[in-house]
Amino acid sequence: MVDFTPVGPVAATEVPRYAGLGTFARLPQLGAVPDYDVAIVGIPFDGGSSFRPGARFGPSAVREASRLLRPGYHVELATTPVERLQFVDAGDIACTPYDNNKAVSQIQEQATNLVAKGKTVIAIGGDHTIALPMIRATSAVHGPVALLHFDAHLDTWDTYFGEEITHGTMFRRAFEEGLLIEDRSMHVGIRGPVYDTDDFLNDHEFGFQIIRCSDIDKIGPLGTIERIKERIGDLPVYLSIDIDVLDPAFAPGTGTPEMGGMYSREMLQILRGLKGLNIVGADVVEIAPAYDHADVTSLAAATIVFEMMALLTAE
Amino acid sequence: MVDFTPVGPVAATEVPRYAGLGTFARLPQLGAVPDYDVAIVGIPFDGGSSFRPGARFGPSAVREASRLLRPGYHVELATTPVERLQFVDAGDIACTPYDNNKAVSQIQEQATNLVAKGKTVIAIGGDHTIALPMIRATSAVHGPVALLHFDAHLDTWDTYFGEEITHGTMFRRAFEEGLLIEDRSMHVGIRGPVYDTDDFLNDHEFGFQIIRCSDIDKIGPLGTIERIKERIGDLPVYLSIDIDVLDPAFAPGTGTPEMGGMYSREMLQILRGLKGLNIVGADVVEIAPAYDHADVTSLAAATIVFEMMALLTAE
Amino acid sequence: MVDFTPVGPVAATEVPRYAGLGTFARLPQLGAVPDYDVAIVGIPFDGGSSFRPGARFGPSAVREASRLLRPGYHVELATTPVERLQFVDAGDIACTPYDNNKAVSQIQEQATNLVAKGKTVIAIGGDHTIALPMIRATSAVHGPVALLHFDAHLDTWDTYFGEEITHGTMFRRAFEEGLLIEDRSMHVGIRGPVYDTDDFLNDHEFGFQIIRCSDIDKIGPLGTIERIKERIGDLPVYLSIDIDVLDPAFAPGTGTPEMGGMYSREMLQILRGLKGLNIVGADVVEIAPAYDHADVTSLAAATIVFEMMALLTAE
Amino acid sequence: MVDFTPVGPVAATEVPRYAGLGTFARLPQLGAVPDYDVAIVGIPFDGGSSFRPGARFGPSAVREASRLLRPGYHVELATTPVERLQFVDAGDIACTPYDNNKAVSQIQEQATNLVAKGKTVIAIGGDHTIALPMIRATSAVHGPVALLHFDAHLDTWDTYFGEEITHGTMFRRAFEEGLLIEDRSMHVGIRGPVYDTDDFLNDHEFGFQIIRCSDIDKIGPLGTIERIKERIGDLPVYLSIDIDVLDPAFAPGTGTPEMGGMYSREMLQILRGLKGLNIVGADVVEIAPAYDHADVTSLAAATIVFEMMALLTAE
Amino acid sequence: MVDFTPVGPVAATEVPRYAGLGTFARLPQLGAVPDYDVAIVGIPFDGGSSFRPGARFGPSAVREASRLLRPGYHVELATTPVERLQFVDAGDIACTPYDNNKAVSQIQEQATNLVAKGKTVIAIGGDHTIALPMIRATSAVHGPVALLHFDAHLDTWDTYFGEEITHGTMFRRAFEEGLLIEDRSMHVGIRGPVYDTDDFLNDHEFGFQIIRCSDIDKIGPLGTIERIKERIGDLPVYLSIDIDVLDPAFAPGTGTPEMGGMYSREMLQILRGLKGLNIVGADVVEIAPAYDHADVTSLAAATIVFEMMALLTAE
Amino acid sequence: MVDFTPVGPVAATEVPRYAGLGTFARLPQLGAVPDYDVAIVGIPFDGGSSFRPGARFGPSAVREASRLLRPGYHVELATTPVERLQFVDAGDIACTPYDNNKAVSQIQEQATNLVAKGKTVIAIGGDHTIALPMIRATSAVHGPVALLHFDAHLDTWDTYFGEEITHGTMFRRAFEEGLLIEDRSMHVGIRGPVYDTDDFLNDHEFGFQIIRCSDIDKIGPLGTIERIKERIGDLPVYLSIDIDVLDPAFAPGTGTPEMGGMYSREMLQILRGLKGLNIVGADVVEIAPAYDHADVTSLAAATIVFEMMALLTAE
Repeated sequence: MVDFTPVGPVAATEVPRYAGLGTFARLPQLGAVPDYDVAIVGIPFDGGSSFRPGARFGPSAVREASRLLRPGYHVELATTPVERLQFVDAGDIACTPYDNNKAVSQIQEQATNLVAKGKTVIAIGGDHTIALPMIRATSAVHGPVALLHFDAHLDTWDTYFGEEITHGTMFRRAFEEGLLIEDRSMHVGIRGPVYDTDDFLNDHEFGFQIIRCSDIDKIGPLGTIERIKERIGDLPVYLSIDIDVLDPAFAPGTGTPEMGGMYSREMLQILRGLKGLNIVGADVVEIAPAYDHADVTSLAAATIVFEMMALLTAE
Repeated sequence: MVDFTPVGPVAATEVPRYAGLGTFARLPQLGAVPDYDVAIVGIPFDGGSSFRPGARFGPSAVREASRLLRPGYHVELATTPVERLQFVDAGDIACTPYDNNKAVSQIQEQATNLVAKGKTVIAIGGDHTIALPMIRATSAVHGPVALLHFDAHLDTWDTYFGEEITHGTMFRRAFEEGLLIEDRSMHVGIRGPVYDTDDFLNDHEFGFQIIRCSDIDKIGPLGTIERIKERIGDLPVYLSIDIDVLDPAFAPGTGTPEMGGMYSREMLQILRGLKGLNIVGADVVEIAPAYDHADVTSLAAATIVFEMMALLTAE
Repeated sequence: MVDFTPVGPVAATEVPRYAGLGTFARLPQLGAVPDYDVAIVGIPFDGGSSFRPGARFGPSAVREASRLLRPGYHVELATTPVERLQFVDAGDIACTPYDNNKAVSQIQEQATNLVAKGKTVIAIGGDHTIALPMIRATSAVHGPVALLHFDAHLDTWDTYFGEEITHGTMFRRAFEEGLLIEDRSMHVGIRGPVYDTDDFLNDHEFGFQIIRCSDIDKIGPLGTIERIKERIGDLPVYLSIDIDVLDPAFAPGTGTPEMGGMYSREMLQILRGLKGLNIVGADVVEIAPAYDHADVTSLAAATIVFEMMALLTAE
Repeated sequence: MVDFTPVGPVAATEVPRYAGLGTFARLPQLGAVPDYDVAIVGIPFDGGSSFRPGARFGPSAVREASRLLRPGYHVELATTPVERLQFVDAGDIACTPYDNNKAVSQIQEQATNLVAKGKTVIAIGGDHTIALPMIRATSAVHGPVALLHFDAHLDTWDTYFGEEITHGTMFRRAFEEGLLIEDRSMHVGIRGPVYDTDDFLNDHEFGFQIIRCSDIDKIGPLGTIERIKERIGDLPVYLSIDIDVLDPAFAPGTGTPEMGGMYSREMLQILRGLKGLNIVGADVVEIAPAYDHADVTSLAAATIVFEMMALLTAE
Repeated sequence: MVDFTPVGPVAATEVPRYAGLGTFARLPQLGAVPDYDVAIVGIPFDGGSSFRPGARFGPSAVREASRLLRPGYHVELATTPVERLQFVDAGDIACTPYDNNKAVSQIQEQATNLVAKGKTVIAIGGDHTIALPMIRATSAVHGPVALLHFDAHLDTWDTYFGEEITHGTMFRRAFEEGLLIEDRSMHVGIRGPVYDTDDFLNDHEFGFQIIRCSDIDKIGPLGTIERIKERIGDLPVYLSIDIDVLDPAFAPGTGTPEMGGMYSREMLQILRGLKGLNIVGADVVEIAPAYDHADVTSLAAATIVFEMMALLTAE
Repeated sequence: MVDFTPVGPVAATEVPRYAGLGTFARLPQLGAVPDYDVAIVGIPFDGGSSFRPGARFGPSAVREASRLLRPGYHVELATTPVERLQFVDAGDIACTPYDNNKAVSQIQEQATNLVAKGKTVIAIGGDHTIALPMIRATSAVHGPVALLHFDAHLDTWDTYFGEEITHGTMFRRAFEEGLLIEDRSMHVGIRGPVYDTDDFLNDHEFGFQIIRCSDIDKIGPLGTIERIKERIGDLPVYLSIDIDVLDPAFAPGTGTPEMGGMYSREMLQILRGLKGLNIVGADVVEIAPAYDHADVTSLAAATIVFEMMALLTAE
């Protein structure tokens, strides 16, 4: 924790929220404070997309939408994150749009710098590929992690068109690299068919349990929270949220939308139920602003980042 | 009640719904009938907005969307409003876009004319500022009211940029002016953080109880109805609905959207549960058509107005 | 059932999903396989629309959105439709846009060809008018059917502007022609007012029972499934889904949207609960792409077609 | 000319332009003044469309866009139309959406009422089909007319799908009915290929001369004006403007857009050059608002109507 | 001129243009360099709007669109602005949205700071009201200025709804305050009618000459340049560009669009023809992003700012 | 030329244009005719994009827009292409989205198959990268070509982020590989600044002459045609059209829009002026449908393809 009183966002009573530099939630930039506890960083890379690209514009859109946040006291989690820790906007990680391997290395290197000395990083994607270098950087500090993954899709496929690192395969890579604690990871919000039932066998082998949206129909948000907590306990958790876990009504602006997703309040209720988990890194990914409307997807992503901020400070 | 058979909307079997003058629900204009019981009036003012302006175009958009209404027999409330009372479209209240105080006076004056002799007015905003002159006009006839307020935000803040009358402060003004019955008002649908926890203390002091969206997760629409009825009983009620009480998926076209709002059927179920309340005035506000898509927000607002019409006539 | 191993969709690992000919779910065209079990056919007719036209572009939009489907193993229904039956994309039925009677004849003739020898047809509308020739063609093979109808509206009105065959009247025609089994049909998802309460009396007389959205609030998806199964049992069923049964948040791109509709997961849960029904024909209609956003409506329709495919093969 | 001082639009200094009843240019309604010289009437019919329907929403969209007009002194034509003649908004003509022949009769009947006693009518479509009943009504008073037709397409084809009256065939019908003065009509703005070169032979036979957009490249707006004036002289002219005569950049919201159309200032310059023509009736058609953006198409149509108003009063 | 080598934009070869902090053209922020020659500043105020508000979001939208600029060598003006002068992004001026007089004072104060010691300021609006405090601040340093004003509208009206300072009246105020050199100002791009011909008399009296769009039809861009240069010579010029001077096809995202405006290449050609003028201050205003599409309006505004940068450095 | 009567498009009088399989201009598919003269092929690859991706959806969007074409007699070029040559829709070339080098090889291989035996190919992109394998395949048959390149940008840069093959560098590669005839290539429509004036020196060295948009202001379309013809004469030409050569008003849906581009009629006039050039291959690229509106960009691209078809058959 920083040894000074954290600097909070620009006051909305002094500068209207639509005015001024668009850092995330109008937080200070990385260089503007002596130190930080949590860095929020954009990773505008979408070279791993298999359908609609455009998540490279996710970070700037989420920052713009985050003007709507009022990052003060979080009622349900009873915390005021920006008073408890120093959050900063670390800007964007620059990487090539043309080569997934090279980009992943570039991201990993810069993420490694940000997590140095045990600081926490929340990444805003970019496509889901960016979770791999984020987990690499995080587990380099914390050791293997339990992966808590909200998504419509498993993302543990093998290769696409011969490419090993894409937005649908990176969690298999993470498993193969030993970055995941055995049998402690979970997918939440999965739905739709699979091309091959072996997908589930493989996925299980990589250490994942699945809560499908059709399971949530039965067990509800509270049952979902319970299962997550049972499985993960107090292990270090990397929390990865593909915005397409939400139903297209709540998040149209994404690359591979799938009907029948989670509703907004379910998402918030489950996230808040995660209070007490030992979150060591996180991301929100796959916001494709060109397909968004009235910023509803970007706003959902920005709100989820604020929930993460609250989770990191709630007691 | 008027002493003649109420004149209803233009028949959809004679004039297609997309044709003809766009009054609300194709009701007669104010001057076209000898008298009226309930006036629906537009108040195209958005000078109190703090984020996205544009609610000045709300009345015309809601009227256009209201072409889709079939204002006949309301099944759940077992009433045919347009047969029981004379509803009219009173057009728009003209006021300056440049000066909140002056505009509020102009609105108050014209609203006062409309409510004369105990008639009921349903206003279509416009930003939420317009609730203040509406409550002033209403309570001038009915005395102080219980305020039943659906919104993502409290709207009981003190001032913005030194301005006392804005879309986030008008209910504090209403309290200060003695327009609200003590300890009988309610906010429903509140969510998101507050800049300062004192906001809640003040709000409570102004006589409000709060049902947050996270409360609705627990008590459901039926529990919500129960709490409202307990608190308000048969007191005169002013019903004020900021369309942003709905989740952005259901109402993207609004000025300060907030993730995690009420869903459409919850809204309708709660409204219908209010049957029996003594509603003496009402508004639906904050529809910003420039951010809407396929008129879903305007249609939601138009439908809510029709529900209000049904509530005023249900027995 | 065809006497050869069904030919499935183009492999997404060989041709990216955004590439190549846009047949439904990238299934083979009708002429590309020796025979078929189920034909998916577009019927781009919207001459029966009473409000927003444009459903003539429904089939092409739904096909484009169906690129997002991964038509493999359906988890909840435990079936891989494209391995069990030969599905084909039969293209579009060509008919005049100018004369409802003539168009209905043209559709009926071509649908009759497709259903010959007991094959099943799933139609993608077009406006709801196309259900009439579809039911005529289907019942010519199977005899009268129980109609299971998901919609915001009854569609059993008499005439509009003197026209007997429109998208709001075709089910009365179907009843009058003796195409419906007595007292075995159902409407699900109905909402909003009616111009005249006689509408319900007539509707009841034509053999319909109604589950309104306000009923679903009470009995939930499981209760809905139960009532449907009780009423229909193992009778031959024609399943007709007007996409406006979904709430406008989930399906903005439609001709006569109505607030307060079904949510996406309710829809999917109910459809999956229909396993065991004897479906002999089906349609999804009223997708108006000009009012859609980010293809959410088209994707919902495409997903529903895939659920129908799964229902036809689930055991 | 009316024998009283014409009543003009609502003053923008008293009622903001975004407020109040949306008549065209905020002119008085038909019944609000004792008599009128020129009626502006909506004809929301699009049953003749062959591609994108939706022009039925044209009149309401053009009226909304006309709020932006400042209908005072027209500089280039040196006239203040609303001071010289009594213009009124005559509302919409109601007609069936389902039967082109019946609709055309209904339109003709109501248009005939409006033109009675030599009054002038400017119609806002609706698809181009509505020009036929408009010309019938007009020529019943004025005898055959020279047709001055701005469009991307000839609209003199024979039938579509067996239908004689559609938005691509109505001018052949007008010729066949003897409504057009021989060899005095013109198409301006034609472009794109034809299915059959006989189309031009037929068209010529029906009395039309053609100025293609590629001709305007050569002769410019001034040359275009000259040719029009030479051909038409002081004959009674019916002026029919399909908004698709404009390039899709200037008028995206239309049913059959065609690249390479007229630019906005060319259109205005040519229209103003028509001063002195004896215009006896006019229409602007094919505005399909579902395809419009930021009302640019509707605003273009509204502006063109105002130019027509100015032409009718310029000296 | 600064006494160090100017710091230019972030290199697009190192940080992709879609990444990183969104300053204008990715220039350094004000505090990041020791001194500056030209400050580009956002003024997100739209309280003076009379029709569509929303220009408060102009600065952030123009900055985002400016990512597309490649601010290097300007071919037509033969200059590399960022090498010749130190340009900075000075962020946004914070002011109240609720009170035009107070806001104008706040803007004036901050603009005055920025122009201190003869520095040049280019403002991005905001609505056109912001030109008044900009001209006040500029003329405080340079004395009265010739105003070169590109707009569809005169903006020299007296009051609206009793308000003296609005986006349609501020140039009359500037005249009254003696900020304009007598008989040396110009409007370019004016079009449409006026409510009253006195508007022109007044306007002339305030020192303006007018080049209407219909004049540009005759004299072309070269003739326009000539007239401007003749009138203004080497006087100090304040250049004010309302983006609605462009035709709605080129700039749909604005508050009071008007058909028949300037085309993009005319605008650029005329601007480049202004080389040699003594520009002492400038603004680009009235970008309303909620009405924009694919950022075409914001990109036009960003490009115009770059043209201004080039004009300030061209020799 | 094929030795049978070419099979033309589906007749619009039999199948409405909005119905049926969406091949380009409703032409027959490759396998549906015995042979072909010209293949139109989609290349849905956008891995070379440097700003807005999404051109992978270009081919399907252009095909959908091409439903609006009436591919009959081309008036200005006096030809009926589909009667003179057999045109086919060859579908899409499948290639990996993840590796530019591999994708380019895959495209080259399939393009080589299509051009075998001297057939002509018109490609629909995809981003501009696809021009490289197209030129390779074309020059393998025809030898080096003169490149006639319409674009806002030079596309002869060296590398981006170390990548040699991108949408801004492929023409330098083509030069280096000896695929371009020396000193005979041209860029038309270039505009905007360059990062470095060396860009022009290099470009000149690679054999290009430049006609900027500011040149077109001076010499007009006719002068442009003249310069092109002088430079290219009767050499084999590869015609490559980046849709961003058009102004954003005419083509908003593209990856790197630039203000001040060509207008639609200029484009058509210049293309038609190329009659007589020896075109041996062609492409239209960079259509990014997610940024398009009402299909205006896709329609422009489809129209340009039809102009190419006409050029290949005009005599």
